[in-house]
Amino acid sequence: MVAPRFQIAVDTLGSESPTTHIVAGARDFINANSDCVLTLIGRSRDFSGFPSNRCRVVDCPTAVPQHATLLDVLRKKSDSSLRAGLSLLANRSVHALVSTGNSGALMVLGRQIISTLPGISRPAMIKQFTRSKGSFWMLDLGANLARRQGLLSEFARIGSAYASSIGGLKDAKVALLNIGTEAHKGPQYLRDTAMELARDPHVNFVGYVEAHALFDGIADVVVTDGFTGNVVLKSIEGALGIARQHVQDALESSDDAKSESVSKQVNTSLNAQTYNGASLVGLRGVIVKCHGNTNHIGIRSALALAKHEIVAQVPQRLEAHFEQSQRLN
Amino acid sequence: MVAPRFQIAVDTLGSESPTTHIVAGARDFINANSDCVLTLIGRSRDFSGFPSNRCRVVDCPTAVPQHATLLDVLRKKSDSSLRAGLSLLANRSVHALVSTGNSGALMVLGRQIISTLPGISRPAMIKQFTRSKGSFWMLDLGANLARRQGLLSEFARIGSAYASSIGGLKDAKVALLNIGTEAHKGPQYLRDTAMELARDPHVNFVGYVEAHALFDGIADVVVTDGFTGNVVLKSIEGALGIARQHVQDALESSDDAKSESVSKQVNTSLNAQTYNGASLVGLRGVIVKCHGNTNHIGIRSALALAKHEIVAQVPQRLEAHFEQSQRLN
Repeated sequence: MVAPRFQIAVDTLGSESPTTHIVAGARDFINANSDCVLTLIGRSRDFSGFPSNRCRVVDCPTAVPQHATLLDVLRKKSDSSLRAGLSLLANRSVHALVSTGNSGALMVLGRQIISTLPGISRPAMIKQFTRSKGSFWMLDLGANLARRQGLLSEFARIGSAYASSIGGLKDAKVALLNIGTEAHKGPQYLRDTAMELARDPHVNFVGYVEAHALFDGIADVVVTDGFTGNVVLKSIEGALGIARQHVQDALESSDDAKSESVSKQVNTSLNAQTYNGASLVGLRGVIVKCHGNTNHIGIRSALALAKHEIVAQVPQRLEAHFEQSQRLN
Repeated sequence: MVAPRFQIAVDTLGSESPTTHIVAGARDFINANSDCVLTLIGRSRDFSGFPSNRCRVVDCPTAVPQHATLLDVLRKKSDSSLRAGLSLLANRSVHALVSTGNSGALMVLGRQIISTLPGISRPAMIKQFTRSKGSFWMLDLGANLARRQGLLSEFARIGSAYASSIGGLKDAKVALLNIGTEAHKGPQYLRDTAMELARDPHVNFVGYVEAHALFDGIADVVVTDGFTGNVVLKSIEGALGIARQHVQDALESSDDAKSESVSKQVNTSLNAQTYNGASLVGLRGVIVKCHGNTNHIGIRSALALAKHEIVAQVPQRLEAHFEQSQRLN
């Protein structure tokens, strides 16, 4: 057996999904990854069937509720499972944290408990979207609501460094999400950002991309503000849900024995677009957030992504990248 | 034969689609609607096969290019087919204009040539999205880029009045698009708008809606700023394109005789989500904008929507609605 090298904590509370799904996904993952140790945080009675030598339990039964306000999160729930997970990451007891709960709480507490990497003012939420040939990453998906030129340029640099560290892309094509591709299109802060990025030697800026062309391979990294990014993510999710429904209806009315296999295949490929995890990047540690409605497959994917980021040394390489670019400036 | 009562102008230039598609759609429409007269604007040699007693031709071969800048539009193309169409609408030679070209130009010239209805400061782009049970309208889809409380409240009132006039909804449920449904979620201008709408006696405000739940029937009218609305529209379009591709792939690999009919059915239902027309509301006249990549079916739908708005007296009823609400305030 390979000696366990990767320590990942999972906050099993605060999700909209049943804990059994989360635990099942974690169990699938640990059984397939003998080089990992999991720290399960939540109600210890929920955790059974894990290999005892590669599983630790932190009994912390208090969740941050899905609908907690910012104030609740910061003031009241000092003993929450999320806070316990972030503290493990802060004191380097684990390499990564996978969270299934409240995104807002994760972002607020993440910034409070984990240090931001030097040269980065705000962490951003990034996620990979797959398309038939290759894939792209988009950020920010909701960690920051401000729409400012400097922030978007920083996201462009974070995204580019992330794609290089995890995707091995040396010169990732970076685009700004806009409502047109011509230079004069969109609000002023976007046009200012485009001017700044065009001059940035650390970013291979390719211009604007429109939301309908996201999957066309124009960019490896798509940059937008957290409000817009969150809306795009959820629009895609909603549209794919509608598509699944239409496919279901069409197949059912076709009265065909093969319908079920086709339907399953379509469901799997469309689900994969939305249910993979997203990462909070820019902090000193790996943090992966699962979709709130995730199933065991989603948890397994999120854990695989966390391991992938540890192996690729994403935080370390981001830090090195930002240090180097600051020296050059 | 019914005497023609509805006069609709079609600007056939400036589209990304071939003119033959646009002309074919217009011909389909006029042959099925004996109560309409079309005014075709563009290159007169392109227009054949129309009933001569219900078709007028305005020979105006100059298009506003798809990629014209605002300045180009306002200064240079004084003889464009779009300007000709808007002038016909302004002097009441026609009841409605259907445009297939540059959206930005339509909005800028529309506001310049057609008066805004009293009580409305800026027109908005609105579109109906269909779901399995019922449908919803969303605005603004790109006519205005500013994110301001007052503007969003105005869009809420326009959307509510539009749903009442064209959809017969007496008390349309109006929601604000946000990145969460709790009161404390999202940027300040959205929370301020929510407070204002909650007190507005002319709007049945039901709170926030998230983009993944747009098709869930929570709201009849979804209000957002033009940047976000445009991005949502195009995200849905892009995601449905991806879905169509996945369905195609799954059906092809299933090696099934019925695949083709299922594939067609799915394509038709998913296409309908994106290729219907959008209306520019808030001006004294009916203006419907086709998707830039529309086919003959899209043109026919846009013409049908224009006729529907004339029959429903949308501009007149919006005017009456805003006059009444101003008297009450």
